[in-house]
Amino acid sequence: MAEIKADVVVVGAGPAGMTAGLYAARERHKTIILDKYMPGGQINLTSRIENYPGIKQISGADLAMTLYEQVTSFGAEVKNGAEVLDLKHRDDGLVEVHTDDDVYLARVVVLCPGSDYRKLGVPGEDEFRASGGGVSYCGTCDAPFFRDKVVVAVGGGNVAVEEAMHLAKFCKKVTLVHRRDEFRAEKVLVEELLEETKKGVIEVRYDSIVTSINGNERVTGATLENVKTKAQEELPCDGVFIFVGMDPNTAFLKGLVDLDENGFVKCDPVYLRTSVPGVFVAGDCRANVAMQLATAMGDGVTCAVFMKEYLRNPDWWNKGR
Amino acid sequence: MAEIKADVVVVGAGPAGMTAGLYAARERHKTIILDKYMPGGQINLTSRIENYPGIKQISGADLAMTLYEQVTSFGAEVKNGAEVLDLKHRDDGLVEVHTDDDVYLARVVVLCPGSDYRKLGVPGEDEFRASGGGVSYCGTCDAPFFRDKVVVAVGGGNVAVEEAMHLAKFCKKVTLVHRRDEFRAEKVLVEELLEETKKGVIEVRYDSIVTSINGNERVTGATLENVKTKAQEELPCDGVFIFVGMDPNTAFLKGLVDLDENGFVKCDPVYLRTSVPGVFVAGDCRANVAMQLATAMGDGVTCAVFMKEYLRNPDWWNKGR
Repeated sequence: MAEIKADVVVVGAGPAGMTAGLYAARERHKTIILDKYMPGGQINLTSRIENYPGIKQISGADLAMTLYEQVTSFGAEVKNGAEVLDLKHRDDGLVEVHTDDDVYLARVVVLCPGSDYRKLGVPGEDEFRASGGGVSYCGTCDAPFFRDKVVVAVGGGNVAVEEAMHLAKFCKKVTLVHRRDEFRAEKVLVEELLEETKKGVIEVRYDSIVTSINGNERVTGATLENVKTKAQEELPCDGVFIFVGMDPNTAFLKGLVDLDENGFVKCDPVYLRTSVPGVFVAGDCRANVAMQLATAMGDGVTCAVFMKEYLRNPDWWNKGR
Repeated sequence: MAEIKADVVVVGAGPAGMTAGLYAARERHKTIILDKYMPGGQINLTSRIENYPGIKQISGADLAMTLYEQVTSFGAEVKNGAEVLDLKHRDDGLVEVHTDDDVYLARVVVLCPGSDYRKLGVPGEDEFRASGGGVSYCGTCDAPFFRDKVVVAVGGGNVAVEEAMHLAKFCKKVTLVHRRDEFRAEKVLVEELLEETKKGVIEVRYDSIVTSINGNERVTGATLENVKTKAQEELPCDGVFIFVGMDPNTAFLKGLVDLDENGFVKCDPVYLRTSVPGVFVAGDCRANVAMQLATAMGDGVTCAVFMKEYLRNPDWWNKGR
């Protein structure tokens, strides 16, 4: 178990983490970025991005590769397969970060483990997501790719109801599938949705679940099951949007930094300081973020810019909150 | 004077504004972006950007052009030469935006007028800035381009002192020129600076001003004048960094939305809501932003994502603050 010193240790090599690392390394800080898996994070699963400002169209994997090249060109080191197990602020002001192989001693840590979309766990889901074949978890990102198409949406909370209405601006037909007999979403939203169904674009299927997503190269349909009658039905469609929640990848942080009731890392929204001195947070794992690529990157830059204040004066950590 | 209705009116076609516009237009909102001048804002004056995540190197003008093409491809309209003179929230919930030619009626307004670096106003300053010939206003952005070079830095506040030390990590020699006989910066910073000068990289010239920036294709020197003795001196250098402050372009907003004592637009840092319902703010003109390209764009996305909450329920505007 080696002990490795660094100025900045970033946990997570997704867009937020690589951006924080890019800025930190470019400031000549010795910067190490740790990731449990490969660099790129969630964008590796996105085949087409067209809402990232400054790049008209790019695949998630290509963007991840560019970020990786950019961050390493400034001297940051990216370590794959490095799972963080423990983290603590020491009396001497350094932050200790433990992985199964090593202990890192950092002046500043930036937490960027991201969030994962909750999955249905049905046949076809992973395949058609990875191939860009018609499974998506983000209406804001992907609805415009389904102009005049027929889609199935799944879920019963605020996001599902909002995103179904959003999809209806683009799609010919949206079938919203919900496993219960009423929505969990706010009443005002549900009323708006039911009003919208009168226009004929949105249809709601209560008491129903999707049991498989079918197709060849692309999605051609979804199998629905009524949970009460067990009747099955094959619904032809061009895409399936899954809106059943997000889980921040913060289980390893429980008891180490303050999390909110949903597991998102708590921070002050201006400087992104967590409850632990020297430990910042950026991207989709933090509370109240807009969960987009550009906001994750903005967060990464914010941490890198404001860490200077902390490095100059540790008392700054609790200033103004 | 035409009356033009829109869902979203964005004031300012810099990176923050074009990003807000890109997202809004992509959500099928009728979106109009107004700019006093040309699209691009401050980045038009930057010849080389290498700290924007996902793009290894690009000129500011090229990035501005890509953003413009991207935002118009989703149907947003960009109007140049449209100076905003007045803005008010009406009783019917719409926001009226006046230019000298037209009146816009918007459901949501996003303010993105940006900030301008304060200039010295000396010969050579504008020329060498626009050409990328060696005049810069941002050490974080441009210090790495001056590796092993000789530079002059100008200013006496926190930013000047910090940036001089930052430049010293890259440059062979940094001469910090300050017009007074002591720094305005915080004591702890000044002490750190004076400690640094012992290493021989940073030298301080008190009571001095830069009266011209000289060179041909690139900067080759700066003329300094001692304000007490009036003695002039030609200092050879490869670049001049000017750190004499920033002015937000918010004069037109005085009395219309709440500004802080430095003229930056006040907002809640989570959702970027200003004091006027329906009017968001994004980018360098707002208080407490990190003043980088990626943070401006992150802000633009944040406004576009959270405007949905307001459009659904206007009472959300004052929630949680």
